[in-house]
Amino acid sequence: MKKAVVLLSGGLDSATTLYLAMSKGFDVRALVFRYGQRHDREVRQALAIARRAKCPAHVLKIELPWKGSALLDSSKPLPQGRKQMRGIPSTYVPARNTIFLGFALSYAESIGAAHIFIGANALDYSGYPDCRPRYYKAWQGLAKLATKSGVEGRRIKIETPLLRLKKSQIIRLGIKLGVPYEMTWSCYQGAKEPCGRCDSCLLRAKGFMEAGVKDPALR
Amino acid sequence: MKKAVVLLSGGLDSATTLYLAMSKGFDVRALVFRYGQRHDREVRQALAIARRAKCPAHVLKIELPWKGSALLDSSKPLPQGRKQMRGIPSTYVPARNTIFLGFALSYAESIGAAHIFIGANALDYSGYPDCRPRYYKAWQGLAKLATKSGVEGRRIKIETPLLRLKKSQIIRLGIKLGVPYEMTWSCYQGAKEPCGRCDSCLLRAKGFMEAGVKDPALR
Repeated sequence: MKKAVVLLSGGLDSATTLYLAMSKGFDVRALVFRYGQRHDREVRQALAIARRAKCPAHVLKIELPWKGSALLDSSKPLPQGRKQMRGIPSTYVPARNTIFLGFALSYAESIGAAHIFIGANALDYSGYPDCRPRYYKAWQGLAKLATKSGVEGRRIKIETPLLRLKKSQIIRLGIKLGVPYEMTWSCYQGAKEPCGRCDSCLLRAKGFMEAGVKDPALR
Repeated sequence: MKKAVVLLSGGLDSATTLYLAMSKGFDVRALVFRYGQRHDREVRQALAIARRAKCPAHVLKIELPWKGSALLDSSKPLPQGRKQMRGIPSTYVPARNTIFLGFALSYAESIGAAHIFIGANALDYSGYPDCRPRYYKAWQGLAKLATKSGVEGRRIKIETPLLRLKKSQIIRLGIKLGVPYEMTWSCYQGAKEPCGRCDSCLLRAKGFMEAGVKDPALR
């Protein structure tokens, strides 16, 4: 079985990506990051989802002592109910996906995995620069140049299967694959129930609405 | 004063890079990584060098639980006295510089620094893939695509001033800049004195010999 590394956040997109990689027959290992999020909820959900999928998971703790993002700094307000999803919001964490992919590349090369899956999405997303197709294209080249595997002709590929899907398409795909959406956590807040007002909750609600499905995470 | 981030390892190349960046008038911040090296010596030396240079330094602890490198795993032998410096040695740490640059990019963007200095060298080096000019060329593109700064037209540049210098040229440059080479640590071992036999010691000795200078770190 071919090995693959999957970046798992506990959200809807990465859970779908995990199930998709497994459905393609990969022997999957998850990487979960604790990087100073305002709450621990998504890490706990990521681990629960990995357990449910019987997928081994590493949790890596990352220090970003310079903060600078509303996602890491609870003294900053979270964007809520933006009329238009334009511009880069205050939840942007500088170079986050670059750091995550660096670790994934190291892990993949160490275990001989030729595939790294990331659930990035460039349609129904928050406008982060490191979710755009051209960013992932640049990564393909970098992964080849950065590694011993690449030099020796064994390429490590960054797989972004959700990149050009709408949120509703992702959800329909995930339902077919049996993704336990009731276990996924999208809200930027860590309260008992999703807030329903932050960007991430709004994108999720829009996706379920357009897919014509009830969100099983909501009571 | 323009801000810059410098990756500082405690070795000869990164110390020279720090002093070079300062000589160019940058307001420099150092990033030092504790990533599971066999010994703590180079981190201590990096911090001592930063202190001497009056440069603020962050130490980041990084977990690479998958090991796979003789540099991180003390049960593996270190390469010694290789007749030829060919191929990629067992001290290669998968994707190490990619992870380091990811953090540097995050830090630089957070503090508004437009320059990241790294003391990579592609001539008198150990053959690591992430020390080659083409790898850094790819990084220039990635840094632009990965960040809010890049999207908004404020490019963060990866500076590799030592990339095409011989070790002896680096040493001569450093001596002019006042780099305290007696404080730098190159040896892969963490003993009281450098072993004099590992790849890193051999490259250093060759550099000082060719520069016609006595290594002040040796008694």
